[in-house]
Amino acid sequence: MYERHGNESVFTWAAPPLKFGNGAIDEIGPEIAALGASSCLVITDAGVRETGVPDRIHDQLVAAGMKAEVFDRVAIEPTDQSIDEAVAWARQQDWDCFIAVGGGSAMDTAKAVNLLTTHPGELLDFVTPPIGAGKAPWLPVKPLIAVPTTAGTGSESTTICVVDFLGLHLKAGVSHPKLRPTLAIVDPLTTVSLPPQVTAASGMDVLSHALESYTSVRFDAKPAPEDPMKRPAFCGSNPVSDVWCEQALLLVGQYLRRAVMNGRDLEARYHMALASMSAGTGFGNAGTHLPHANAYPIAGAVQNYRAEGYPEMPMVPHGQAVSSTAAAVFRWTYPGDPGRHLRAAELLTGQTFTRTDGAEALAHVLDELMSDIGMPAGLRSFGYDESHLDTLVDGTMKQTRQLAVVPRPVTRQALTDIFRESL
Amino acid sequence: MYERHGNESVFTWAAPPLKFGNGAIDEIGPEIAALGASSCLVITDAGVRETGVPDRIHDQLVAAGMKAEVFDRVAIEPTDQSIDEAVAWARQQDWDCFIAVGGGSAMDTAKAVNLLTTHPGELLDFVTPPIGAGKAPWLPVKPLIAVPTTAGTGSESTTICVVDFLGLHLKAGVSHPKLRPTLAIVDPLTTVSLPPQVTAASGMDVLSHALESYTSVRFDAKPAPEDPMKRPAFCGSNPVSDVWCEQALLLVGQYLRRAVMNGRDLEARYHMALASMSAGTGFGNAGTHLPHANAYPIAGAVQNYRAEGYPEMPMVPHGQAVSSTAAAVFRWTYPGDPGRHLRAAELLTGQTFTRTDGAEALAHVLDELMSDIGMPAGLRSFGYDESHLDTLVDGTMKQTRQLAVVPRPVTRQALTDIFRESL
Repeated sequence: MYERHGNESVFTWAAPPLKFGNGAIDEIGPEIAALGASSCLVITDAGVRETGVPDRIHDQLVAAGMKAEVFDRVAIEPTDQSIDEAVAWARQQDWDCFIAVGGGSAMDTAKAVNLLTTHPGELLDFVTPPIGAGKAPWLPVKPLIAVPTTAGTGSESTTICVVDFLGLHLKAGVSHPKLRPTLAIVDPLTTVSLPPQVTAASGMDVLSHALESYTSVRFDAKPAPEDPMKRPAFCGSNPVSDVWCEQALLLVGQYLRRAVMNGRDLEARYHMALASMSAGTGFGNAGTHLPHANAYPIAGAVQNYRAEGYPEMPMVPHGQAVSSTAAAVFRWTYPGDPGRHLRAAELLTGQTFTRTDGAEALAHVLDELMSDIGMPAGLRSFGYDESHLDTLVDGTMKQTRQLAVVPRPVTRQALTDIFRESL
Repeated sequence: MYERHGNESVFTWAAPPLKFGNGAIDEIGPEIAALGASSCLVITDAGVRETGVPDRIHDQLVAAGMKAEVFDRVAIEPTDQSIDEAVAWARQQDWDCFIAVGGGSAMDTAKAVNLLTTHPGELLDFVTPPIGAGKAPWLPVKPLIAVPTTAGTGSESTTICVVDFLGLHLKAGVSHPKLRPTLAIVDPLTTVSLPPQVTAASGMDVLSHALESYTSVRFDAKPAPEDPMKRPAFCGSNPVSDVWCEQALLLVGQYLRRAVMNGRDLEARYHMALASMSAGTGFGNAGTHLPHANAYPIAGAVQNYRAEGYPEMPMVPHGQAVSSTAAAVFRWTYPGDPGRHLRAAELLTGQTFTRTDGAEALAHVLDELMSDIGMPAGLRSFGYDESHLDTLVDGTMKQTRQLAVVPRPVTRQALTDIFRESL
């Protein structure tokens, strides 16, 4: 809390303006008109387009006298190739603003499109080293309105865009304040048609955002930056992110099972949308750590796994990838701050836990929840075995942004043990 | 929560980016440089200038090669006259940005200066009807960095600027999203030199922001707006403001007494700064209700009262004015939502209350806290008696923005009773 021996003493926090509620998407026409925009590109995927939401938004824009088009070729779990396609398409015209409609895939693609229609070059120029060149955007970007239709990613609140670089066999992220949406419009009614498997995986992503931020290294337990304008994207847990993460854990514990079991439970959908926004507001500044770092190679190196409820292609949905090592990770991080791990288990269950319950408390709560909502039981489900451990560990070791806020020193041995335990 | 019979179903929320921590003000030079500004006006009052903080900021700007000046003639509890003076002074030159350093007085003056150096006209043009003409700013405004040096107003988070209109004998506010600071830099160390009386009054303002927002009419218990782009400035309590307000109440209950008793208790100062920011972030969107509405005529009609720790002039400090009717107000609003009133008393004390404790629970908690920190005992302290009740009620009835979110129908009789009980 106080500056000590050259430690960091400052944390930063930001979130986009929010419009939240059932029916909120019907206000998007006036919102865009108020920006003074005359052309607008709606960015979505084919599955979300089938729900009718992107076209409802498109029609509002046209009715308000704007030029509007829908690009619906966003890839679920975007790749450098799918981003290139979206960017090449968008670069054919000038756009005054962008509207992302969908899950993290649509929002992250829209962030990349915004960046690469206002800047020359390619996405890898902006990816954190050592994977990319780590450039910062140097020009203004356009307004980007985020309309999440899953309760998961929290991407509407964050500066982060995550992409699967196919040639590199790993996922990596671009993060910069200019990528943060200028307005988040969250309408829980848009999530009602999500299938149970997608609701479950998205919900586990919410949980993991909150839990990882909540247990990440405290902002003031790191050295002060040499240049205060070049703080890392993830500053570590802090008094503002903590409040939002606790709120998200409470809501996930109360509503995720209900939202999975009965998608038309509007109260559950409403509160999962709130949970997703809360977790996004927390982790977007504090940061995620190992479960997310592990998720990138898990998703990036997959060969044949197909997930029910998702497109027919080899893919580990992000929420499944993230949660597949969570129990093992939090069993391992427990000694770093037992009180927080027990508190998280309490928020998720409404029960009381003590030090006697130890590291198993939270691990057990996570296992039970994942079993209840039908999440895959381990990395073997995705086709991994002992022979893949080195590849997975290699991929995690490249995720420097996340590794910087893991609450325990990370070694190859520890990662190998975590992946093995998660098989 | 769900749209019902034409009720509102949407709430909005926004807060400026935040930089928080001990030593944060030493990063203001690079922050302003990053804006690309070449001239900057630091707006403060004479008392705050004596602490050296405004000049430390000024010197950073000059060292970074900018033209910078300090305007230190902000009035404590700004009046239309003091605003006019600041605006006239600022209008003599072009400024790229403004930095407000101080309490609500400095920040609200800076908001008015920003508005009236970028727009023609006078402040009353922008005040909510029926007091003013209710114009909305139609031109861009300049970046405004808010550096609060009290833990009270929360003005760094809000769109609101409150001014005492001397000729009208009342205080009134201007509110617009364009008035919200573009960055809040909160450095708890700047509050260490505040005298106990100012710490106490500021802290009661924090408490009242949180408590009023928390008990204000729920956003969805009001009719839907005809034009969604013209929602009232205060949308009523909602799931986001509630989280911020609960956090503020918890922190005030734990740290306000300590900060008043020992100004060098850095842990208490740190958490009161967090509480102030949290309450500002909550009430800035949900709204305040009767204690704030009452505070305007209480402060506006004062004749001879002088407050210890404040400038030698007739004045009721805002925190004293706000808290002077709080116990009576919350005793009266209790039936509107007993659970929330009891929960607030619990957050403030760490104790458990039940329905048997009734309306007295929260009223008693407030009375006890105010007595402990040496707040004035009632409106008679400020020189009011039975003969002023009509004037005070008249002034409150003009505060339409606050009256719209009072959780019980407001009548002249109810207000008269509240003011009488608070004498």
